[in-house]
Amino acid sequence: MQYSKRILDLKDSPLRKLTPLIDEQKKKGKSFIHFNIGQPDLETPSCFFEAIAQYSHHNVPYAPSLGITPLIEAIQGYFQEQSVSFQKNEIIVTTGSSEAIFFVMSAICDPFDEVLIPEPFYVNTVTFMKQLDVVVKGIPTSVHDRYHLPSQAIIESKITPRTKALMITHPNNPTGTVYSYEEMLMLKEIAIKHHLYLVVDEVYTGIVYDNITSRSFASLCGLEDHVIIIDSVSKRYSSCGARIGAIASRNHGLMREIGKLAQARLSAPTLDQVGAVSLYQLSSSFIESCASTYEKRRNAMINSLLEIPGCHVSIPEGAFYCLVDTPFNDTEAFARWCVEEFEVDNMSIVVAPAQDFYLEPHLGRHQIRLAFVHEPHIIEQGMKLLAQAILQYSQHLHF
Amino acid sequence: MQYSKRILDLKDSPLRKLTPLIDEQKKKGKSFIHFNIGQPDLETPSCFFEAIAQYSHHNVPYAPSLGITPLIEAIQGYFQEQSVSFQKNEIIVTTGSSEAIFFVMSAICDPFDEVLIPEPFYVNTVTFMKQLDVVVKGIPTSVHDRYHLPSQAIIESKITPRTKALMITHPNNPTGTVYSYEEMLMLKEIAIKHHLYLVVDEVYTGIVYDNITSRSFASLCGLEDHVIIIDSVSKRYSSCGARIGAIASRNHGLMREIGKLAQARLSAPTLDQVGAVSLYQLSSSFIESCASTYEKRRNAMINSLLEIPGCHVSIPEGAFYCLVDTPFNDTEAFARWCVEEFEVDNMSIVVAPAQDFYLEPHLGRHQIRLAFVHEPHIIEQGMKLLAQAILQYSQHLHF
Repeated sequence: MQYSKRILDLKDSPLRKLTPLIDEQKKKGKSFIHFNIGQPDLETPSCFFEAIAQYSHHNVPYAPSLGITPLIEAIQGYFQEQSVSFQKNEIIVTTGSSEAIFFVMSAICDPFDEVLIPEPFYVNTVTFMKQLDVVVKGIPTSVHDRYHLPSQAIIESKITPRTKALMITHPNNPTGTVYSYEEMLMLKEIAIKHHLYLVVDEVYTGIVYDNITSRSFASLCGLEDHVIIIDSVSKRYSSCGARIGAIASRNHGLMREIGKLAQARLSAPTLDQVGAVSLYQLSSSFIESCASTYEKRRNAMINSLLEIPGCHVSIPEGAFYCLVDTPFNDTEAFARWCVEEFEVDNMSIVVAPAQDFYLEPHLGRHQIRLAFVHEPHIIEQGMKLLAQAILQYSQHLHF
Repeated sequence: MQYSKRILDLKDSPLRKLTPLIDEQKKKGKSFIHFNIGQPDLETPSCFFEAIAQYSHHNVPYAPSLGITPLIEAIQGYFQEQSVSFQKNEIIVTTGSSEAIFFVMSAICDPFDEVLIPEPFYVNTVTFMKQLDVVVKGIPTSVHDRYHLPSQAIIESKITPRTKALMITHPNNPTGTVYSYEEMLMLKEIAIKHHLYLVVDEVYTGIVYDNITSRSFASLCGLEDHVIIIDSVSKRYSSCGARIGAIASRNHGLMREIGKLAQARLSAPTLDQVGAVSLYQLSSSFIESCASTYEKRRNAMINSLLEIPGCHVSIPEGAFYCLVDTPFNDTEAFARWCVEEFEVDNMSIVVAPAQDFYLEPHLGRHQIRLAFVHEPHIIEQGMKLLAQAILQYSQHLHF
């Protein structure tokens, strides 16, 4: 029996494919500090559990396909705090940002249409596009520019008649880059000039450092038909397993079309929507306090990394990842070695090899992504292990 | 700004597109008995809520991409009660059967590949295939055969080199047909002879009437690489809003490929998985008792329908729908009229026009689908309204 070409073209998630090896080692009693998954360690706000506990119906029915009204209103309120207005019919609740990205790409791209994305990128976005036979093209960025965007001319040189959209993650995963207002205006100009959608994954909104301010792309005027915002409760509210996200766009025709996909899959999970209402109602000061917590973690990680010989890191301006240049040219092998071979007192670390964050197979092979989603003392402990692992692996390679 | 052809080709869900009109009428004080959505009225078993209430962690993390182990084990146990054995790595937990169907079709079909499906069909299945640019071809069935399958020769005449799978809903939505063992063996022969997958949506398993026994397609020997079972807690356990489903298949290569899609979307909702464990652990006697409840509802509906002049109905053998031939040749207009114009004491009914359950635009235009998901006295009240609506609409059409 054959499988589809589209699925054979997909890779295992670089963030999760080590899981079976890790489980095997855990059975043998080895423990790990996980830096591979962007799974916040902060508590899910208790209001989420309380709202679900107060659900008093005796049946858990399908929710309305576009989302329950209190959640849509809470999402409106969340954007309003950023001085961004969305009407009710400009928001669709989705099963995580994963489904949101998938719906949007289904609605704007046919097979062989093209989408531009800054490289390195959030790998699952590209998997969704490939699942839909959409062609992904990279916009090159570099550690030397802290992964900020290249010139308008370079971006425009990638545009063809089949290009339908620019896909941006802002703040960025895996680079931590927060795009400047000038970069946003440049993307606006490109979107208008070339009739492109600007799909912006803003799930890390507000998780920014060093007093940087980040604005929503939805605050840009004149882009009403172009901008499509992707959101989620996963990261800001430490609620990854709730699987509640949203699409927000002022392009009413597009939202009607996406509504057909929402209807077909019936609804996002009902109880999680009930819980998510309370999350979106949390004020911006809640997010600021989380950001301040993550900033301490970032600092702990960066300070440790800067002391590891042979490593180079661009200091993230937002989100909770950093992309680290290592001395090795095959970090996939290194990551596997950390799981299977390396240990100090029966303990090791899990890192995400960065190769699959790039389209070009030769790029990113020397990089790893680390998520700083632990308390500073655990991060410091993990970075000590990383330093030892890098030293031992260098020696290992030389034998 | 343009939309994709694939989305423009999709229709609004015939089950949900009346919702805005209904909401408008409800605001004016009109009430409705809903026969359009397969939303069970039975209580979600209390063990579901109890299991979620007992969740004691302070964070709701991503679940493992393939599902939490206790849920996979509970699903194994559920199949074991039907004398069907699946290994742990032969089950993947999904976000409802919707995602399950979507994953399977992504993994076995490329754009322009073909899938055969008995017509009429569960409309959303076809929407998922179109979203993936898969070509759907109908296997004709008729009310005169109670929508059972045509001959092997007729089915085989639809197969081309691009045909990848047969898609079966068993027991069937919208027809209520439960396929006989002979029909199952015929499909087995076709699948083996033509190297086709047999994708079987078994979400209504156990909801069967008149002492019919239905078997899982997974019980057929010699089809290990071909059969892919789709399941869900929605219907059997009255838990539509939990959005928990599953894929079960002994084709290990295929399950590994589907695992890549599961990884990309991270996980199905975590708390709902915790609740679903307790649902899958309910014994078959729980499902039998639900089936007996639905049988009374079916009888109430059928007895009422048989008395309505101009209506014809095939008595469903399973699931909780019946497909009714009406005297009208545009039931979409009739359904809208029921919502907007018809009322008795400010009350009306919502029915699902059946046209979109067929590929051929001229088929099904005279049919409606009714879900018997209410207590018998409400069904009887609704059928009285339907009888009056049919009478009035006949007069309305003659003016």
